Amino acid sequence: MYMNFEDQLKDFSSQVLFNANFGKLSPFKNIIISGMGGSGIAGSIFSELYDKAPVQVVSDYELPAYADRDTLFVGISYSGNTEETVSVTREAMKRKCQIRLVTSGGELSELGPETVLVPKGFQPRAALGYLIKPFLNSFITSDPKVYERISSMMSEMETDNSMEKATADKIYGKNSIPYVLGYPPFRWVAYRWKTQFNENSKLLAFSSYFPELDHNDAIPFKHTYGKDKFSFIVFGGSTGQIEKRVRFTSEITSTEFITVEPKGETILEKMFYLIHAGDYTSYHLGKLRKIDPEDVSVITELKEKLKS
Amino acid sequence: MYMNFEDQLKDFSSQVLFNANFGKLSPFKNIIISGMGGSGIAGSIFSELYDKAPVQVVSDYELPAYADRDTLFVGISYSGNTEETVSVTREAMKRKCQIRLVTSGGELSELGPETVLVPKGFQPRAALGYLIKPFLNSFITSDPKVYERISSMMSEMETDNSMEKATADKIYGKNSIPYVLGYPPFRWVAYRWKTQFNENSKLLAFSSYFPELDHNDAIPFKHTYGKDKFSFIVFGGSTGQIEKRVRFTSEITSTEFITVEPKGETILEKMFYLIHAGDYTSYHLGKLRKIDPEDVSVITELKEKLKS
Repeated sequence: MYMNFEDQLKDFSSQVLFNANFGKLSPFKNIIISGMGGSGIAGSIFSELYDKAPVQVVSDYELPAYADRDTLFVGISYSGNTEETVSVTREAMKRKCQIRLVTSGGELSELGPETVLVPKGFQPRAALGYLIKPFLNSFITSDPKVYERISSMMSEMETDNSMEKATADKIYGKNSIPYVLGYPPFRWVAYRWKTQFNENSKLLAFSSYFPELDHNDAIPFKHTYGKDKFSFIVFGGSTGQIEKRVRFTSEITSTEFITVEPKGETILEKMFYLIHAGDYTSYHLGKLRKIDPEDVSVITELKEKLKS
Repeated sequence: MYMNFEDQLKDFSSQVLFNANFGKLSPFKNIIISGMGGSGIAGSIFSELYDKAPVQVVSDYELPAYADRDTLFVGISYSGNTEETVSVTREAMKRKCQIRLVTSGGELSELGPETVLVPKGFQPRAALGYLIKPFLNSFITSDPKVYERISSMMSEMETDNSMEKATADKIYGKNSIPYVLGYPPFRWVAYRWKTQFNENSKLLAFSSYFPELDHNDAIPFKHTYGKDKFSFIVFGGSTGQIEKRVRFTSEITSTEFITVEPKGETILEKMFYLIHAGDYTSYHLGKLRKIDPEDVSVITELKEKLKS
C-alpha cells in the first residue's frame, strides 16, 4: 500500500491507537535508546516523559561503556537499515543488554532480539505514532481511553488545519527561518518541529527551550542583526516561572513570538497536539514553497555515497 | 580584582591548571549535573567525555525521580545564585544524593554540601576552565603534564589569535548568522560556540552535529531559502564515517563550510583548543560589531523581573 504524504500525515490519529508494547521486561538500572533523525525523535520525546531511570538517547555510532546486563537497550530505525543504529545494536548484543527493537523491517529485524514490527509504507517522520507508542504503552500508560481521546483530537486537526496553515502563511509571508522555542516537557517536541521544517518544508530551522535559552539566546533576541529573517514560534500553555520567562523574554527583547496554543488537558494530549500542529505547519509551508514534502533525495544520495 | 573581558579570556590557559577535584566519592550508579548556560556547559562537555555511568545534565527546575542515594549530584552555578540550580540542589539534598557543588559563592555555597570554590571576578562563560576542571581531575585525568601541554597551547592562541580573527572577519563580512556543526565528542563544544556567539557577539547563532544533522538539516542545506544569511562552521579532525559525512554533505548540498582545524593530539587537547578558538572568534566578532562583549544586561533585567 502506498500513500501520498498528506494521507501519511492523516494516519497519525490512527497510529496513536497502536497497542504494541515491549512485553515482559526484566529489572533494569538504565535505558539506552539508539535512533537517528525521525526515528530517534521517538526516543528523545519519551526520554522527557520518563524519569524513573536514567535514559540516554544515542544518536551516533558509539554505545556508552556503561551499557551491560542491567541496561534496557532499545534500537529504533523505521527502515531498519540506519547504519548508526544497526552498529550500536550489534554492540548492545555483545554486551548482553536486555534488548528491544522497533522497526518496519530491514537489517535490524534480522538481528534476533525481540522486535516490535511496525507497518511499512511511511516516511519515518510520518510513522512517529508507531515508533513512540511501544514506549508509552510500556512505561507511561496503556489505557485505551487515553489514546482514543488523543486520536479524536488529532482527527479534528486532520480535517481542519487552517490554524496551522495560518502559521505557515506567516512564516512564508516574510520568507523567514523558523526558530521554535519549547519548554519542558516539550523540548523535544520543539526539536521535532525543527526537523519537520527541515524535511517537509526543506528549510533551515532551529529549536531551543526555556529556561535554558534565557541564559544565552535572550541576548541576541535584543541585539542581533538579521532578526527580521526569523520567525519565533513558542508553545503556549506554560505556567509558573516558565510562563513568566516566555512573557518577559518577549517584552525585554522586543521580539514578537508566534504562539501555538496546545489543546487538551494532560501532558500527553498537549504533546500529541503540538507534534501534529508541527506536522501540518511544516507541510503547508512546503506546499507554499511548491516543493515536494516527500523528497528526501539529499539523504538518499548521502547514504549511497557513504556505502561506497 | 576586576579584569576586563579580554584579560578574562586570557586567563583560560591558567584555569586549566586548576587542580581541584571532588575528593573521595562513595560508589554511585548515575550522575546528575544541574547547571544553566555558561555554567551548565561544563557538565554537558564532561558528559560527552565520560561514559562509565549514565550522566544527565538537568537544565531546568526539576530533579528526575530516579535521583537517590545512588546518585552523584553535582550542582554548578558560577554566581551561586542561579534559581534553577539552587532549586534542583535543594531537592537533591532532600533525596539524600551524594552531593558536590561548584561555585564562586552565593546561595549555593551556603547550602552545606561539599563545595569546590572557584575564584570570583569572571563572567561565568570566562570561567569554564575552573568549572570543568573538577570533573576532569576526578574522572578523566589529573596528570599535571597533560594540562601543562594544553595550557601552553592555549597561551599561544592568547598571544596570536589572528586565525580566529580571520574567521570572525568572514562571518562579519556578510553579516551572517553562525551555524556551528560539531561531531562527537565535540557536540557540546559546538553548542559552546553557539552560546559564545550569543553572549560575546550578541548574535543569533546555532549548533548541531554530525551524524544526526545528516538525517534532517542536510535537506535544507540544499533547498532552503536564505542560506546566504548563514556561515557554516565545521570542526576539522574527524575520521572514518564522520569525515566522509562532513565532506559529502558539503559536496551534495553545495554548501561552503568554514573549517576550524583543532591543534593537539589527544581529545582533551583538541577539545580545549576548539573551545578557546570559539572564545576568540566570538570575541573578535563582537569587537567588529563594536558592541561590549561583557554586556549581559538582558539576562540581568530578566532575572530582576523574575524575582519580583
